[in-house]
Parts: sequence; structure tokens; C-alpha cells
Amino acid sequence: MLLSQPVTSPMHRPFVDTTNRSVLVGGHAPTNGAVDIVQLFAPIRSGLVQVESKMRATDSSLFAPLATAFVNLIGSGGKRLRPALALLSAEFNGAMQSTKDHGRVVALAASVEMLHTATLVHDDVIDGALLRRGAPTLNAAWSGGSTVLAGNYLFGTAARFSAETNDMRVIGLFSDTLRTIVDGELRQLQDRFNFRQSKANYYDRIYAKTASLFCAATEGAAILSGLPEERVRDLRDYGYNLGMAFQIVDDILDFTGDEASLGKPAGSDLRQGTLTLPFFYLLQLSMDPSALLQQLEAAQIDADNGNRRAWHDLVDEIVWDVRTRGAVEAARNEARSFLRRAVEALASLPDNSYRRALQGICEFTVQRTH
Amino acid sequence: MLLSQPVTSPMHRPFVDTTNRSVLVGGHAPTNGAVDIVQLFAPIRSGLVQVESKMRATDSSLFAPLATAFVNLIGSGGKRLRPALALLSAEFNGAMQSTKDHGRVVALAASVEMLHTATLVHDDVIDGALLRRGAPTLNAAWSGGSTVLAGNYLFGTAARFSAETNDMRVIGLFSDTLRTIVDGELRQLQDRFNFRQSKANYYDRIYAKTASLFCAATEGAAILSGLPEERVRDLRDYGYNLGMAFQIVDDILDFTGDEASLGKPAGSDLRQGTLTLPFFYLLQLSMDPSALLQQLEAAQIDADNGNRRAWHDLVDEIVWDVRTRGAVEAARNEARSFLRRAVEALASLPDNSYRRALQGICEFTVQRTH
Repeated sequence: MLLSQPVTSPMHRPFVDTTNRSVLVGGHAPTNGAVDIVQLFAPIRSGLVQVESKMRATDSSLFAPLATAFVNLIGSGGKRLRPALALLSAEFNGAMQSTKDHGRVVALAASVEMLHTATLVHDDVIDGALLRRGAPTLNAAWSGGSTVLAGNYLFGTAARFSAETNDMRVIGLFSDTLRTIVDGELRQLQDRFNFRQSKANYYDRIYAKTASLFCAATEGAAILSGLPEERVRDLRDYGYNLGMAFQIVDDILDFTGDEASLGKPAGSDLRQGTLTLPFFYLLQLSMDPSALLQQLEAAQIDADNGNRRAWHDLVDEIVWDVRTRGAVEAARNEARSFLRRAVEALASLPDNSYRRALQGICEFTVQRTH
Repeated sequence: MLLSQPVTSPMHRPFVDTTNRSVLVGGHAPTNGAVDIVQLFAPIRSGLVQVESKMRATDSSLFAPLATAFVNLIGSGGKRLRPALALLSAEFNGAMQSTKDHGRVVALAASVEMLHTATLVHDDVIDGALLRRGAPTLNAAWSGGSTVLAGNYLFGTAARFSAETNDMRVIGLFSDTLRTIVDGELRQLQDRFNFRQSKANYYDRIYAKTASLFCAATEGAAILSGLPEERVRDLRDYGYNLGMAFQIVDDILDFTGDEASLGKPAGSDLRQGTLTLPFFYLLQLSMDPSALLQQLEAAQIDADNGNRRAWHDLVDEIVWDVRTRGAVEAARNEARSFLRRAVEALASLPDNSYRRALQGICEFTVQRTH
């Protein structure tokens, strides 16, 4: 279509070039080849079990269908990456060894994951989504109103857990993160179908949507474990950079995945009007970006007038171009840069199994295929 | 219809029998006749101004349409009863005189009102309401998704304010109250159109929906001002009983009000399937409650099958019966009992202008006509 750039990146090139791996993790690759997340989390397995049971211990006074729904929601959770970040970050000053601090770190880890779950529940209402991670959403089984309330209940539980850290700074961090996440989601709604928005909007959004909570996990744990301020900042930087990369990879997968792995057609972000990094790169690599923008705007007006076919066809075309014209590769390189900065932020921390696990998470992030 | 009880209470009998007023407020009626809420709040006027400006000080980084919407939402707020309860309760140990504690009490008051506003915003989404207090709801102007997020942002702000109290117990109280409110709303959805539910469900719901937040305001302020535990309990009891009465009066007004004052047809709670105290009394006063229940169930099945006319006609009939057959009077008496207990709970507190204001709020509650 409008791109004159030659095709530079083969479509199915592996996500991580193995020859580059040592650059990313600074020579401390924890495994050969594919990262095994279970093995990566081995040093904090008992903490993760405690987080799990804390999250599942629903209020006995809660009415029964809600309690069941919550256990299902929480149970269908993914990798528990956010709690793992908190638990690992708390290990550098031995917080997980002290009985008193241990409970507070588990509370933080559970709080962060609850907040994440609450936002997912509301996202499903906002998007009208009926499936998530292949399982029916609460939104599919319940009315929208009940789902809003269920999300609120999870927010309340997250706030309760954050209060249990008994640390004013961490509690403040929690409530600021909640506001940041919501502000980001509102901006995302606001920016939809605004094809002329700046790339800065994208970075603001992914910080708010993803990186802010990663930071809250690592920074909060560093605070709770009483690390000196410079190390708190290091762990915050790690969380920030990892979170930015994590979301960029998510946004790449939305273009490169197929319907089977994504559970939805490729390019669904763009289809819903949300611009992500691969799109911005496509625009940048294009010889005539303003023609592409006009094409998008015209198709969107058609779609508003009921002709959605032209819009979907154009998105399909753009998905193809993103995959084949260097945009994916450019976005991948940017994710790698963030991950390199994440690894660099760990430089002053002791080189132990916890730090290697944090490095391994960077490796895992770049290897993700779904 | 199904009631054989004679008509005992005239429909337009004034809400408060002036001969009873001294019973209610223990001889300390602050005004003659109608309670003037502005005059009642005079002792805490400067605190209320600070709460107002704290609530309106939106984050400058917030995107503009949202900031405007929030100021409108917050600005259309009612009487600021909940902040007033916190500010008045904090006065018995001089917390509002101490500069340090002052800011914490203002933070609590703002937090309670923000939490209240957030739940109203979500209620409007859940009910699909387009008007509140005569003004268009955010839900009317925005998409449902944006409104959910706007409510979440207000929750985040409320959590932030509660963290500013710097008191772990108050922060815990805040998050427990959020969970209680949400749990109550879920139960309300769950109980809809269940005509055979127990009256206990009603008390649980109004505690969760209204009284819990009144308690959080009075108890939280008592804690922040360092009152002894017995006085904390007294102020909690006051908040609890006032809140229960306040909601009962609301539920009575839903039956006795007209469309002009309510902004919706009388009996709208019952119309939406929510059973309130006047209805339970009607059932209790009925000679054949099971016939009434069967009639309701049959009309509701008809309504589900598309014949909504029969349902609305039956509700209109019940509204008339509630008004004329003693159910309103019985519910009013119960509200008065709660208010009497609220006033009694203040007995051990110093008899000053703050206590008289708290008593006056009880008087105001019983006089409310909208």
C-alpha cells in the first residue's frame, strides 16, 4: 500500500535472536534457550503459595455466588508475574526472612494482583468482552451492573491488603497507582480513533496501564524491606522498564499472533481504534504517512456510517504491512532497549538467585509468544 | 386490595409530630420548627470550605474533559452531610483546633464524600440512570465505559485522601467500608424481585448502603481526634443509628413523594424489584400476605413476558396501600426509634454546640421531605 520501504524483516523470525541474549541479560542467562517461568520463580515458591491463599480466602460473610465467582476469577489468573516481582524485590534486604515483614510483603503482592484483577474485570465490561484467557468473563455470565460491582469489591479487597502493609508510603503508592491506571484507561478511550495523536500519548498510556503497577510491586517491596533509597529507585527503574517492555511485547503480539493464540483477530487494538507502537513505526517508516492517515480517517467515517467492511479490510492490510515492513522489528528493538535498561537497573544489587530471577523475567518477556 | 386493616394514618400528616420533637432530641432542639441545615453546620463552616476545596483540587495532569466532569460531579453534591458528620465528631477532643490533626480530619471528610460520590456514579451506570439531583448524570453524557472509569478514579482519589489521614486504623476502616458498600449493592441486585426475602435482608442492605459510611465518618473522626474507646464507640453508634434512619426515611419518601419532587414515579424501588421497609410493613399489616406475594410474583412473570402494564398497575396500587394503611407510619416510627438511639449515644459527650448540631441532624433527618 502506501509504504515504499523495502521489506526488511522476515515475518517468522524468532522473537529473540539467541546470539543477542547475552547482551540483554548481561551474561547471566539463567537457562539455556526458552525461559521456564516455574523454574524462575522457584526461589519464591512458598511466598507465591501464601499470596495465592490470601487472595482466595474470601470473606465468609460474602454472599455465595459472588464468593464462587471471585475464586474463579482469581483462580484463572495467569503467571502471577506482579506478585513475583514484589516477592523477589523484597529479598534483597532479607524482608522475606523476617516473620513480621514477610506478612506485609505478601499483603503487598496480593494487593497488586487484586488491583490488576479488578482492572481486568472492569476492562471486560468496558469492552463488552465475553472471553478472557479463553474462559468466559464474569461479564458474560452476569449483568454489566453486577460486574462493575464485582470489580469494585476487588478494588476494596486490594485496598484492604494494601492497608495491611502498615506502611503509609506503600499505601500512598497503591492509591496513586490506582488513579494512574484509571487515568490511563480514560486517556485510551479518549484517544481512540485519533490517528494524529502523538507517540508520547502511547508511552503515557502504557506507563499508566502496565508499567505503573509493575513499579508499585518492585518499589513497594523495596520500601517494605527497608532498602536504602538508591536501591528503592533501582528496583523502581527495573519495574518501570520491564513494564514498558512487557506492554510493547503485548502490543506486538496483537499484530503478529493468529486468531487461535490471541482468541481474537490480529490487529484488534487498531480495529478498536487504539494505536500502539508497531503502528507508530509503520507510520514512521511510511513514505507518505499523511496519505495513510487520510485513508484511515476515511475508512473510519465509512465505518461510522455502517460500512464496517472497508474498515476491517484496511486494518487487515495494515496488519500485514506492520508484519512485513520492519515495524514489528523496530518495536521489538525498542522493547529490548527497555529490557536492557531494566537489567542495568539491577547492577548495584547483590548478584544472587533473586537478581537472576529478575533478569530471567526480562528474558521471558522478550520470548513471550502469547 | 388484600389488606383488611383499617386506614389508620392520614396520608398528608406532617412527617414530624411537633409534640414529639422533645422526645427525639432530648429537649435540645436547636431551632424552633424546621431545621435549617446551613445554621446547623455553622460551627464547622470553615472545615466544610476546606473539604470542598480539597475535593475540587483535581490533579493538573488529569486530562481536561475528565477534570471538568469531576468538578461538575463534585459540585452538584448535596448537603455534604457525611463530611459534616466527620468534622463535628472530631470536635469533641479538639482535633480541629490542632493544626496537624486538622488536615487529617479534612482528609477523612473528603475521603468519605468522594467514596459516596464514586458509588453514586457507578449506581447511575448500573441503573442506567440519566438524571440525578435533577442534573444529567455523567452516564447520560458519556459512554458507560467512561463512567465506570470515572467512578474508579473517584475511588482512587478517596483512597488517596484516606491514606492522608496517616492512621492505619482509619485506612483499614475506609477499605472495609468500601467492601461493605459493594457487598450490599451486590446483595441488593441479588435480592431484586425476591418477594419472599426476610426483613433482615433489608436491614443488612441499608447498613451496607448507607449506615456503614455514616459510621466510617463519625468513628474515623473519633479515632483521629484521639477520643477514648468508649467515646469512639458512642460516635460509631450515633453514625450507625442515624444512617439507618436516614435510609429508612429515603425509602419512605420513595413511596410518599410525587414525581416532581422525586424526579421519578413514586414506588420506583419496588418497581425495580427492591423491597424496602414500608413494603415489609404493608406485608405485616396485611391479613393475607401470601396472596399479596402471589399477586406480585404473577405480575412479575407477566412483566418478564412483556406485559409490563399489569406490573406497573400493581405497584401503583401498592404505593396507595402503603400510604394509606399504616405502613408509612410504622416505618416512620421505626426511623424515629433509630434516631432516638442516635441521640442517646451522644449522652456521654460534652453538651456543646457540636453535640447540638449532631442532634439537629437527627431532627433534620426526620423532617426531610426530599
